[in-house]
Amino acid sequence: MSVTKSKGERTRQRIVERAADVMSVRGYSATSMADLARETGLEKGSLYNHFDSKEALALAAFEYSVALVGRRFDEALAGQERAIDRLRAIVGVFRSLADAPPLPGGDPVLNMAIESDDAYPALLERAQVAMTSWQKLIGKAAKEGVVSGELRPEVNPRELASIITSTLEGAVMMSKLFRDPIHMRWAVDHLMAYLDSLVVAGRA
Amino acid sequence: MSVTKSKGERTRQRIVERAADVMSVRGYSATSMADLARETGLEKGSLYNHFDSKEALALAAFEYSVALVGRRFDEALAGQERAIDRLRAIVGVFRSLADAPPLPGGDPVLNMAIESDDAYPALLERAQVAMTSWQKLIGKAAKEGVVSGELRPEVNPRELASIITSTLEGAVMMSKLFRDPIHMRWAVDHLMAYLDSLVVAGRA
Repeated sequence: MSVTKSKGERTRQRIVERAADVMSVRGYSATSMADLARETGLEKGSLYNHFDSKEALALAAFEYSVALVGRRFDEALAGQERAIDRLRAIVGVFRSLADAPPLPGGDPVLNMAIESDDAYPALLERAQVAMTSWQKLIGKAAKEGVVSGELRPEVNPRELASIITSTLEGAVMMSKLFRDPIHMRWAVDHLMAYLDSLVVAGRA
Repeated sequence: MSVTKSKGERTRQRIVERAADVMSVRGYSATSMADLARETGLEKGSLYNHFDSKEALALAAFEYSVALVGRRFDEALAGQERAIDRLRAIVGVFRSLADAPPLPGGDPVLNMAIESDDAYPALLERAQVAMTSWQKLIGKAAKEGVVSGELRPEVNPRELASIITSTLEGAVMMSKLFRDPIHMRWAVDHLMAYLDSLVVAGRA
């Protein structure tokens, strides 16, 4: 197996990356294959050589976007052993996401969750899968924290994951709406203080 | 002046109400005038008799949607004199919005904030105006609470308004994504407890 990508693979990758940027700003349904042809400088036929449909391309762009954001979390979590530190690292990533977003249109899962409806079941399903895996990342750390005695025993891991996610995703929206990262900073500070309040005395 | 609406005004109103429902689910940019003609059972020409452009119709549908949601807040705030009770009422409205949404696609401001980008400056501006007025409603109650001594003096009204909004709007998104109002219930419970923590002892 060769480690270098073929020309076709490189073209495909270039289409996916450009589509991820464009669709992140403009939305999946509002972006046409003609838009993407113009943005990539390719013929529409060339796009269809790589993707059977706009939906197939949208899915590939979404998966790429989710992986791009996921890498930030992997980096932040590397070397964090204690559950409470993992939770703080997850929340803290959003500070950097607000200051230096990996995609121009913000969080792909949030965008997809808002945009997708019953007309795009495949896209909706992928957004649910991505959000569920993110919920599990937080829930698992919370559960470990309860088991290890770092977090108070009444902490409900699923509930904590939901509250953290709601607060941060809402702050992504607010920062995007007002073009002002202050909303994310306030949300992160609030959650850090909330996490502190869940830590068993002497385990911070 | 007659209090009954002319046929033209009734038709206009019917278009706006139907457009608000459809665009709330499908998005403003993904909904075409042809879609709205089909949904209202009118000719496209008839839509253009009432609205110069899809953007003009989208703006009218957005204003109507914001007013529809705003009425829930007016009802909840009626008779609430103390600042802390006003804050609790505002947060509590979201429970009923999750259980019985006034629009099928959820919060119009959230949808507009996510969907609108530099391609739709007028829509983005309206979303900012609507969100700012909502922030002021919360911020004003918080400020009154600090002045009256109900809330702790270190409470920052703008920050509190931002945290409440982020948490609730994020929970709207989560409940919509998973078709499960539990996320909204957790968010509301979390914020009610947070508000309790800001109340000066003896003033709850």
